[in-house]
Amino acid sequence: VSEESTVEARPARLSVTEMTELVLPQHANVLGAVFGGALMAWVDVCGAITAQRHCRRIAVTAAIDELVFHHPIKVGDVVRLTGRVNGAFKTSMEVEVKVEVEERGTMVRQTCVEALLTFVALSDAGKPARVPSLLPENEEDLRRADEAKARREARLARQRKA
Amino acid sequence: VSEESTVEARPARLSVTEMTELVLPQHANVLGAVFGGALMAWVDVCGAITAQRHCRRIAVTAAIDELVFHHPIKVGDVVRLTGRVNGAFKTSMEVEVKVEVEERGTMVRQTCVEALLTFVALSDAGKPARVPSLLPENEEDLRRADEAKARREARLARQRKA
Amino acid sequence: VSEESTVEARPARLSVTEMTELVLPQHANVLGAVFGGALMAWVDVCGAITAQRHCRRIAVTAAIDELVFHHPIKVGDVVRLTGRVNGAFKTSMEVEVKVEVEERGTMVRQTCVEALLTFVALSDAGKPARVPSLLPENEEDLRRADEAKARREARLARQRKA
Amino acid sequence: VSEESTVEARPARLSVTEMTELVLPQHANVLGAVFGGALMAWVDVCGAITAQRHCRRIAVTAAIDELVFHHPIKVGDVVRLTGRVNGAFKTSMEVEVKVEVEERGTMVRQTCVEALLTFVALSDAGKPARVPSLLPENEEDLRRADEAKARREARLARQRKA
Amino acid sequence: VSEESTVEARPARLSVTEMTELVLPQHANVLGAVFGGALMAWVDVCGAITAQRHCRRIAVTAAIDELVFHHPIKVGDVVRLTGRVNGAFKTSMEVEVKVEVEERGTMVRQTCVEALLTFVALSDAGKPARVPSLLPENEEDLRRADEAKARREARLARQRKA
Amino acid sequence: VSEESTVEARPARLSVTEMTELVLPQHANVLGAVFGGALMAWVDVCGAITAQRHCRRIAVTAAIDELVFHHPIKVGDVVRLTGRVNGAFKTSMEVEVKVEVEERGTMVRQTCVEALLTFVALSDAGKPARVPSLLPENEEDLRRADEAKARREARLARQRKA
Repeated sequence: VSEESTVEARPARLSVTEMTELVLPQHANVLGAVFGGALMAWVDVCGAITAQRHCRRIAVTAAIDELVFHHPIKVGDVVRLTGRVNGAFKTSMEVEVKVEVEERGTMVRQTCVEALLTFVALSDAGKPARVPSLLPENEEDLRRADEAKARREARLARQRKA
Repeated sequence: VSEESTVEARPARLSVTEMTELVLPQHANVLGAVFGGALMAWVDVCGAITAQRHCRRIAVTAAIDELVFHHPIKVGDVVRLTGRVNGAFKTSMEVEVKVEVEERGTMVRQTCVEALLTFVALSDAGKPARVPSLLPENEEDLRRADEAKARREARLARQRKA
Repeated sequence: VSEESTVEARPARLSVTEMTELVLPQHANVLGAVFGGALMAWVDVCGAITAQRHCRRIAVTAAIDELVFHHPIKVGDVVRLTGRVNGAFKTSMEVEVKVEVEERGTMVRQTCVEALLTFVALSDAGKPARVPSLLPENEEDLRRADEAKARREARLARQRKA
Repeated sequence: VSEESTVEARPARLSVTEMTELVLPQHANVLGAVFGGALMAWVDVCGAITAQRHCRRIAVTAAIDELVFHHPIKVGDVVRLTGRVNGAFKTSMEVEVKVEVEERGTMVRQTCVEALLTFVALSDAGKPARVPSLLPENEEDLRRADEAKARREARLARQRKA
Repeated sequence: VSEESTVEARPARLSVTEMTELVLPQHANVLGAVFGGALMAWVDVCGAITAQRHCRRIAVTAAIDELVFHHPIKVGDVVRLTGRVNGAFKTSMEVEVKVEVEERGTMVRQTCVEALLTFVALSDAGKPARVPSLLPENEEDLRRADEAKARREARLARQRKA
Repeated sequence: VSEESTVEARPARLSVTEMTELVLPQHANVLGAVFGGALMAWVDVCGAITAQRHCRRIAVTAAIDELVFHHPIKVGDVVRLTGRVNGAFKTSMEVEVKVEVEERGTMVRQTCVEALLTFVALSDAGKPARVPSLLPENEEDLRRADEAKARREARLARQRKA
């Protein structure tokens, strides 16, 4: 771990990222639904921008911890992605990305994909760099940070076993 | 013009669209800056989603009325696009798309591109369809609608001359 | 769940899938390494083909259960992906995808990414369809199937809690 | 403005650029027509090459001054783009790009899109560079140059007002 | 072979196709030159349009008979492709595609790639369809047709042997 | 020709390359089949990796000597490419790439495309570099090497004539 040892805490609210995409035939599989890889690319970009906004550095994907498809997404759909930092650790961050589809006639949104990813902040020399801690602003922020910490510990425990 | 003759007016606020993109080498020209066509594709998608959210139908690009590059955008930059309906006419809408680059270290935003596009709403049969009028909510909404109307009239006058 | 109630068991060996890719600038991020989304698209395609080979139907991504980047992958690298069915359930399969980079001079391979994904088999009518069970051929097959089952149960338990 | 103060005038004829493209599903929107962004990318490339051929330097997009879709373009269509320099100013050029669709059975062409773009010539140091003036060869060349100058002045006047 | 038994002969001149492309980083390999596959895609599109213009039907690639890279093509280069029908047979056509790079400063062109491809005309039912014969207009047209015929016979002879 | 004058012979078996791809709408033409250029890009990547594995250097495409489409490939198909070095010359290699489609229900494979390409090995300075000769391991290896040599000589003879 390199550089600045004191990094001011920041609220998650400041790095929330909203992406909107239009599903075109170039994103489709043979069924006319978004093919998994196209959607994952959007999720990854949304998560990376969220992480970079929090740490104010380049952030690279370290892991997808979970990504679940709840509903299919069709060509022509408008897709909204929202990224949010759940937990900030020494040099990494857990980011949640939620993907919603918006019905054209009613603008009602339905959650289609939920994902949790881990990004690592990089210094200009390409080494893992210190990440600002999260400044919780409400109960939900605290709950998200606790859950992210618990998931991280469970994962580290699983890795130690393996 | 087909279908529903009464379409309830809606405030522009409800269709404001925010897109965020990360500039990758696949979007670059030989100088390492975004190549014009890649940026125009993002502007077009952002404008189309904004228009579709206002008219709640499929909307297709009828014209770019103006698109100005103020500052270059580099590979690695985070780009934020904001779309907003300025004016709603019988079957068409003028949409403004603003593109900002966000500096990684400071999150300061700089406007890089400003564009005005016209989209046409399509019925399910693929014919131009009635568009809801705009419900102005403040002075800025009124000013935008007036300017959009003036630009439209100037353009129609130029076309009559040619 | 629809169709054929008896589906003959098949060994995982028969659906093992090998993909090889060359990393081009169009797959890179600003650091000249594969950007996360490009890699995830390859992993998803490799997993989907593996699943389709096992169930002999169209299979769509239901979840990424885990995807870890161990080492960066650079432009110019040759990447080898290997997909293998770990566990077969009623209408879904757990597929492991391993991504290795091959050093040009020595052809030594290094594991860069490991991923576990869940795919669902679809009938021609687009409904979840029965998946053949796995016919274990050796100790490793048995161990993989046991671990897949344990992961699935842990995930279902976590979901019931949430 | 940098470099060579004397740049020999050149006729527009020498930089006329013809591009031909085949519309594939990867260029389509949900209606099976070319999506606006794909078409704009072709228009931008055609205009940039035209501008580069005139100034013999790298030229980057400064603005789209107008781009009108007259007729939809369908998957499978053959598209012909023609770029031509209308006006040459100190360091910029106005380029017209016309897009025609060619009917397969009859080879009859129909104009689908007309666009006017402004490109800026860049020196090797990346600064705006002197552009050769246009050598008119006939009445049409003179008319185009006059109209380009008038449009430029009207635009500058509008910008001063705003 | 299906449909219309009499198809009027047409000169090759009428189907000559010119494409112009700008080489972007998304077309490059790790050396900053066009990667083979990107160039082949352009050659294939140019050849297909040329063939379609001759037979006025959909034409699909049956074979690349030869494609030679004489000089590398770099990111930033302007590339000109020219397609021309050399020979027309019962339901197929031999098309030559020449790829030139144009030097920015001098506009001098250098041939970089030469290719010969065979396309098959398809009826609306997707069956091979009669192709118009070529109407030679000069010595070069005759020479090209003779050479195409000789190449076709040599290839058929090689296939019979194998 | 540069560098190392003695390069140890290697069997073709060590550089055999297997690629698997899933045909998506982004690879299709207007008929819903793979468009020629998309397939050629896969063939080129498969051949380049095969050549690089043999010579352990960067290898670039010098020529396609033959590429024949035997059967169309449809969206949704699983495609398997196999690359193999047939002949190794001073600084170049002939690589065969076979493309098979795998039927989903039965996993029966059908050869769709056969291609022969020539790649040139490059030194770190970008100059043609010595290629290891092939160590034949069986009758088929000998036959392939003989045929590659004969094709090369025939091609050189044709080029001398032209």
